Amino acid sequence: MSEPIGRRTWAIAEGYIPPSSTGPEPQMTSHETACILNAGDAPAEIEITVYFADRDPVGPYRLTVPARRTAHVRFNELDDPEPIPRDTDYASVLRSSVPVVVQHTRLDSRQAENALLTTVAYAAQGSE
Amino acid sequence: MSEPIGRRTWAIAEGYIPPSSTGPEPQMTSHETACILNAGDAPAEIEITVYFADRDPVGPYRLTVPARRTAHVRFNELDDPEPIPRDTDYASVLRSSVPVVVQHTRLDSRQAENALLTTVAYAAQGSE
Amino acid sequence: MSEPIGRRTWAIAEGYIPPSSTGPEPQMTSHETACILNAGDAPAEIEITVYFADRDPVGPYRLTVPARRTAHVRFNELDDPEPIPRDTDYASVLRSSVPVVVQHTRLDSRQAENALLTTVAYAAQGSE
Amino acid sequence: MSEPIGRRTWAIAEGYIPPSSTGPEPQMTSHETACILNAGDAPAEIEITVYFADRDPVGPYRLTVPARRTAHVRFNELDDPEPIPRDTDYASVLRSSVPVVVQHTRLDSRQAENALLTTVAYAAQGSE
Repeated sequence: MSEPIGRRTWAIAEGYIPPSSTGPEPQMTSHETACILNAGDAPAEIEITVYFADRDPVGPYRLTVPARRTAHVRFNELDDPEPIPRDTDYASVLRSSVPVVVQHTRLDSRQAENALLTTVAYAAQGSE
Repeated sequence: MSEPIGRRTWAIAEGYIPPSSTGPEPQMTSHETACILNAGDAPAEIEITVYFADRDPVGPYRLTVPARRTAHVRFNELDDPEPIPRDTDYASVLRSSVPVVVQHTRLDSRQAENALLTTVAYAAQGSE
Repeated sequence: MSEPIGRRTWAIAEGYIPPSSTGPEPQMTSHETACILNAGDAPAEIEITVYFADRDPVGPYRLTVPARRTAHVRFNELDDPEPIPRDTDYASVLRSSVPVVVQHTRLDSRQAENALLTTVAYAAQGSE
Repeated sequence: MSEPIGRRTWAIAEGYIPPSSTGPEPQMTSHETACILNAGDAPAEIEITVYFADRDPVGPYRLTVPARRTAHVRFNELDDPEPIPRDTDYASVLRSSVPVVVQHTRLDSRQAENALLTTVAYAAQGSE
């Protein structure tokens, strides 16, 4: 038995998929990732809602992270209900059926040398 | 109905707008951003106060993030009551009328290849 | 007497060891690090479990951080029960016998210029 | 009257001052910074203790952040009781007389293009 770790609701206020890339695909393709860890014994049913500056939110995007697995989800590859536009500010909220841990990472390869950022996402209070 | 997520008071202890940039504007202009997500159903009235090393704080800078929207606010572009000086250490406190989530990001393009940093800001306790 | 600081259970949802490096070893070798601070007066017995996208978790990897010491543990160098594969998404959970603080860092030197990321890991609630 | 924001005890588990730099001083000198925001009405008397992998902690380093001010403290420049060695893993604990907010940043300019990392430090529970 593995004890679940984390929360069920997470927010990532920063979102931006660079419009171009340098270097071999897919490792060096500019991308944004939500790294999700499900350390518990039940599958995590996840719904992602994407927020924009000037139009209504889009979603939910749905995915499942099996028990005792991690999924590094590229926002670039989400396409149902619709792809996330490039070169556009967005933000996201992730809701899970069981506690998970979420970390946000971007690789920006617009220039010849890549740049990286990461942070643990914001864990909503009361969502254990 | 969307449930609000986050807190009403946030602090960013690191602040620094690089004095120069390399590459096409505005994407590659060196900048500091406060990414604000308002996932709730009421507009967020935001006041930003900026702190310095050797003089009194400046502000409030005021802005509104509509319901179910995100705003990626560049400190470079704040100019009322006064622009934020370049090449100067500062810090900031954001106070919102409703819970929001705040993430801090910098793109530094002083050199030919850009560098990035990000972190979720510090959420003040008791400000739900 | 030093008061212990931190928590006993931490999670790092992002994990990826770049498959290549540029520059002198070991400083410029691409690596992932869990920086562990044990500010207390008792040794910290640590167990790390590593999670993958498509197979069962591996571990525990065991190590000790003495009282009032820090250890910057490179995932690259963990090899018992088995090395962590390169160019593969993973995540990790650290469990300690006493409260510690954990920060996650990566240096990516696949290209000529290095890139860095860091974040404090996720501290599980109730694990003081 | 400004309400204080933050905690009194903070930990930074990652610490490393790169041994070399590229570019003009002091902006492009490789450095580690603890950005401290004192948003309250009383001065913050700060004590920093530095932890190592293989020897006893050093400190306290003492400094004051005046009321309603920020200080971006470079570990490179701390020298009393002794300078912090370069190219050496360390960690740090900051204790303040009043609540403050602490964010950790590094600029690494060992190579021609600089790299950046940042995170809000770990805020010890019960230290409001």
